[in-house]
Amino acid sequence: MTENLTTTVSSKSQTVEISRNLPTVIIGERINPTGRKKLQAALEENNFTIVRQDALDQVAAGATILDVNAGIPDGDEPVLLKEAVRIVMEATDVPLCIDTADPDALSAALSIYEGKALVNSVNGEERSLGEMLPLVKEYGAAVIGLCMDDDGIPESPEKRLTVAAKIIERASKLGIGPEDIVIDPLVLTMGADHNAGRITLETTELVVKEFGVNITMGASNVSFGLPDRMHINAAFMAMAIHAGLTCPITNPLVTELTTAVLAADLAMGRDEWGTRWIEAFRSREKSD
Amino acid sequence: MTENLTTTVSSKSQTVEISRNLPTVIIGERINPTGRKKLQAALEENNFTIVRQDALDQVAAGATILDVNAGIPDGDEPVLLKEAVRIVMEATDVPLCIDTADPDALSAALSIYEGKALVNSVNGEERSLGEMLPLVKEYGAAVIGLCMDDDGIPESPEKRLTVAAKIIERASKLGIGPEDIVIDPLVLTMGADHNAGRITLETTELVVKEFGVNITMGASNVSFGLPDRMHINAAFMAMAIHAGLTCPITNPLVTELTTAVLAADLAMGRDEWGTRWIEAFRSREKSD
Repeated sequence: MTENLTTTVSSKSQTVEISRNLPTVIIGERINPTGRKKLQAALEENNFTIVRQDALDQVAAGATILDVNAGIPDGDEPVLLKEAVRIVMEATDVPLCIDTADPDALSAALSIYEGKALVNSVNGEERSLGEMLPLVKEYGAAVIGLCMDDDGIPESPEKRLTVAAKIIERASKLGIGPEDIVIDPLVLTMGADHNAGRITLETTELVVKEFGVNITMGASNVSFGLPDRMHINAAFMAMAIHAGLTCPITNPLVTELTTAVLAADLAMGRDEWGTRWIEAFRSREKSD
Repeated sequence: MTENLTTTVSSKSQTVEISRNLPTVIIGERINPTGRKKLQAALEENNFTIVRQDALDQVAAGATILDVNAGIPDGDEPVLLKEAVRIVMEATDVPLCIDTADPDALSAALSIYEGKALVNSVNGEERSLGEMLPLVKEYGAAVIGLCMDDDGIPESPEKRLTVAAKIIERASKLGIGPEDIVIDPLVLTMGADHNAGRITLETTELVVKEFGVNITMGASNVSFGLPDRMHINAAFMAMAIHAGLTCPITNPLVTELTTAVLAADLAMGRDEWGTRWIEAFRSREKSD
């Protein structure tokens, strides 16, 4: 087993460490107009009220990093993303995960970001590696690497590992160390392929064993198209944490998911005396 | 990784295979007077009505093996266990897990058992190995081996592995193959030691990697003394299945636990097209 690496990200006033020796870090996923018509409409009118409220709500619910995505059809993404990042920096103290596939938008957002951001994301495509990684290096950020490349998402864990290896190698050539790479093994839905969850879990284990890097994923996708998604998501989250997941991108407002994360941390010995578990239980009791 | 072994147990009419390539097998834990005053009082009066009903209820709820324990203070265990086994064999078709530390009771129960039983349990103590293993061999049973010995329950996963190795080796000398040994890594409560869950998960992984044997545990104990035990138990169950657990001893009447088992099987790719998940969901909907 390779040594577990620590990824450090920061805002102006807060530093967050991601590591398998520490409790799981929740990256709040809500600030993303994909599939959220109200947020999309607001961004079209340069209205960032929802963005601000989403930031506050997610931090209150336990998110320790916030993902910020401002991609809308025909939107001026560099302008929108930069403004969204500015609004969220004003509203909260947590480090941000800047979510775009557009190098111009990334550059605009990083240019005003105060601290060490997490960039979401690069993948194994030549274009992504060539255009995005230099910006990650220039601004001293950390970066999420998706296990897909010009040929799409590989089916087997071994091939996804190969893509992760390519991203880590290319980053290394630019002077970005593996401690600043967070790999996303990618989660397809078991509603379409009942092996999808297994493939993600196995990829996670392979990548962790080989490189010791931190792991993120948007775990809820695994249950798309199946009934009783919440119980699948909770079990899969716990299993993914056991496999090596350290910073899921998820909705911290869904109590069942944050509870599964806390239970998994407890079972991994990362909750001394069960303090976090007991505190969260008391907080849930109060809000009932 | 060692090859995954298949443990086969049977009743007169049913064969159950336990393997990491198949869905998780639930061993129903209810027929056990420990901590159940009504059942204990009934057994004191040679009344097996509850035993019979527990058998029927657990099979209806999805147990595919039933644990049968008839140990009560000052009870004639050989007589009681033999009768309990007879009653359960009459009431259901599932294979049984004969649960006793008393060689006389084990011998009495095995002498009338029709099929290949699972014996619960031996441990690494010289007395247990010397008195119980020969009976397992004589009756051609499979056996659960607990990771404890004359010095108690070892704290570290490595030492628990050593006990498992000792049991497997001693069994082998009698001609009992590793496919007929199911190891219980033992689960202490995280209410007393927040590393208890981690130690059990790590022991499971070590034993699976080294021997490929099947794994059982009484997983619910992990949350004793903590609040909201159900969410801990569900997450831990899913994580333990990911670590290598194949036949938990648990209460199949607790829907949250059986649902976690089904979700974990789905995430491990052991539920083709999600058929079992969808069927169980429909059945839960009907019973609501």
